[in-house]
Amino acid sequence: METHKQLTIGLFGFGVVGEGLYKVLQQTPSLKASIKKICIKNYGKKRNAPASLFTTDREELLNDRDINVIVEVIDDADAAFAIVSTALKNGKDVVSASKKMIAEHLPALLSLQEETGRSLLYEAAACASIPVIRNLEEYYDNDLLHSIKAIVNGSTNYILTKIFDEGLDFKQALIQAQQLGFAESNPTLDVEGYDAVNKWTFLLTHAYGITAAPDEILFNGIQHIHAADAAVAREKKQAIKLVAQAQKLNNGQVAAFVLPQFVRQDDHLAFVKNEYNGVVIESGFSDKQFFYGKGAGSFPTASAVLSDIAALRYQYKYEYKKLYHHRPHQLSQALYLRVFVSFDDIALIPRERFEWIEEWHAQEERKYLVGVIAFAELKNNTWWRENNTSLILTADPVIEEVETRKLKKKSLELAGIV
Amino acid sequence: METHKQLTIGLFGFGVVGEGLYKVLQQTPSLKASIKKICIKNYGKKRNAPASLFTTDREELLNDRDINVIVEVIDDADAAFAIVSTALKNGKDVVSASKKMIAEHLPALLSLQEETGRSLLYEAAACASIPVIRNLEEYYDNDLLHSIKAIVNGSTNYILTKIFDEGLDFKQALIQAQQLGFAESNPTLDVEGYDAVNKWTFLLTHAYGITAAPDEILFNGIQHIHAADAAVAREKKQAIKLVAQAQKLNNGQVAAFVLPQFVRQDDHLAFVKNEYNGVVIESGFSDKQFFYGKGAGSFPTASAVLSDIAALRYQYKYEYKKLYHHRPHQLSQALYLRVFVSFDDIALIPRERFEWIEEWHAQEERKYLVGVIAFAELKNNTWWRENNTSLILTADPVIEEVETRKLKKKSLELAGIV
Repeated sequence: METHKQLTIGLFGFGVVGEGLYKVLQQTPSLKASIKKICIKNYGKKRNAPASLFTTDREELLNDRDINVIVEVIDDADAAFAIVSTALKNGKDVVSASKKMIAEHLPALLSLQEETGRSLLYEAAACASIPVIRNLEEYYDNDLLHSIKAIVNGSTNYILTKIFDEGLDFKQALIQAQQLGFAESNPTLDVEGYDAVNKWTFLLTHAYGITAAPDEILFNGIQHIHAADAAVAREKKQAIKLVAQAQKLNNGQVAAFVLPQFVRQDDHLAFVKNEYNGVVIESGFSDKQFFYGKGAGSFPTASAVLSDIAALRYQYKYEYKKLYHHRPHQLSQALYLRVFVSFDDIALIPRERFEWIEEWHAQEERKYLVGVIAFAELKNNTWWRENNTSLILTADPVIEEVETRKLKKKSLELAGIV
Repeated sequence: METHKQLTIGLFGFGVVGEGLYKVLQQTPSLKASIKKICIKNYGKKRNAPASLFTTDREELLNDRDINVIVEVIDDADAAFAIVSTALKNGKDVVSASKKMIAEHLPALLSLQEETGRSLLYEAAACASIPVIRNLEEYYDNDLLHSIKAIVNGSTNYILTKIFDEGLDFKQALIQAQQLGFAESNPTLDVEGYDAVNKWTFLLTHAYGITAAPDEILFNGIQHIHAADAAVAREKKQAIKLVAQAQKLNNGQVAAFVLPQFVRQDDHLAFVKNEYNGVVIESGFSDKQFFYGKGAGSFPTASAVLSDIAALRYQYKYEYKKLYHHRPHQLSQALYLRVFVSFDDIALIPRERFEWIEEWHAQEERKYLVGVIAFAELKNNTWWRENNTSLILTADPVIEEVETRKLKKKSLELAGIV
């Protein structure tokens, strides 16, 4: 039988995750992993570990031949990329939790892994404690993976939960999330969807072999959701969630987006509340599996980092099977989305660009419509996120083919808006 | 990059799972897996596949050198063991869905895998579509796996759900389950817990390296649950589920059992209704992950079989890491359980064998008590499943240490029962 690799770790970062890791590794000698040196930004604070462990000089870790694993849990994406790429080049395996760094540098990180033959694991970077990367990579074969829908950002989910369950308004909910540590003091990355789309980029790689930059994916956050939208959702007995979705189309390509979406009560994602994350995978034979757990925070993150460290003992690497061993899928724009749009002034809504309009509520103080629109229309234009307009996908929003010409004019006439 | 292995399959069984597999493999040439021959019990029925594919002679598949994978989806455990062991000896990889066969023959199957170096995969045998074996084997390292709690039997969960949500009595619920195909015409294996404990045996192997026979594990089914027990549960705003549980103790050993258990509304397992299965894994840093999906039925089973077939293209094998690469855990009897016991006649309850009794309801028509009892008392005796007695674990039932002598007499005195 294969023997375990003895791991000697150089750790970057000694915040709550780093310190937690240090403690658990100390308490669990059977893991055969010990931290030799810890690189911190500055010596300012008193640390709960022997002073001799610490340095501020990253080279001390990166050039130490005894250190065969670099674990990086810092929150500076640029510094993280420099550390991770040097570590791989220096022949070290790497565990990282930096989603932004991975999303932005994925092509370079793929090349570095190929060139060096070293392993880069980052389960903690998406959905923290939920082993979503490992399952997409190892268990859900390309040909059998119909779709994946997920809540990947805990801050926005916390805020949406408070808005729905406790009737808080957006600002109150955000402040509460910040007080509890579920949202950053600068919440833009979370609230406007950047964090979610970052995670979605590399989850798409493990799911479908797609290597897209974050800005190639259609996304938005929850910043435009209006109190009246929540009221409509409640009336329909639905919730609004920030849903990252990818699904295979009949043309063999993949539709992917991260947008607010109405979610029915019986949808698995409706179960995902507060700071939790959830992933629904629809695989062969159209069966659904649901993975659920904490998606952020020090303990869930440390837990995922530990699982990656444990996997390195067996020389585990991502093979990127969907990218290298299959014909990777392409992102498609050849689809339509059924959307809810609320707005103040109909004049600012280019209603003629909808394929058709199914509902039309012009009497309410906050007006809204439900209609079907080309994916490309949203990808290539910004009117739907300007002028206090909200766009929220309906439940099951993807429509692959429409008979536009027949329906368009008729539906607009019926709606009395042309 | 590694190339795919071309898979030529010999299929045993052409029921709903077998036929579904055949169709999907035909429709998905990129899977590079084709069925060369199908072995059936008899030619009686008309089949939706070319007649030339079928045989009733198992040797035609087992001795065919072209066939490098045997897939076995029959429901005769003895025949399945003969097929699987011959296939491994003949140098073929095997995918099996026979939980009973695997539970009963695990030591022999482990030896056969070691001797032959072939791969035997059986994700479909436990929780069907939920990749629980793969995650326990690959993701949750021994040292980080605190506990695992699961609903692994869909029939009993369906029955319990109907009893709780629709107020059906046990017999009505059972008949409905049978009509919908969620319970066998002979429901004993499901209802009395045999199916659940069978699955638990090999899940314990992948979780903790424990290789116990089913009868070494403390288990019971739902056959003794009384209508009055459900009423008590409802009063406490709890449900009753048949829960398979294993958890690491302070002594380094593992407590494992499959028993009905009260489940709080906020427990992940309360979400698992009808024929669904669910698994809650508590790992490093005490964080919980929840896996949920369909646990039985033709499509979920076929879906898991397909994932195993896909994995064989990459020569995937279970390494049984917890058994071979770690010091395997031992089952412990050194613990106590907090139990609810309802009964007709106090004279038949050996109340002096309880460590202490916390609640005592002697006025109700159906009497019950809540008390703490040694695990070994239940493992070694049968009074608790005789004479119309029900025993149901309370939520969080495991107690590691008790100060018996002080409490015992006092609590019994207080209860007025000695």
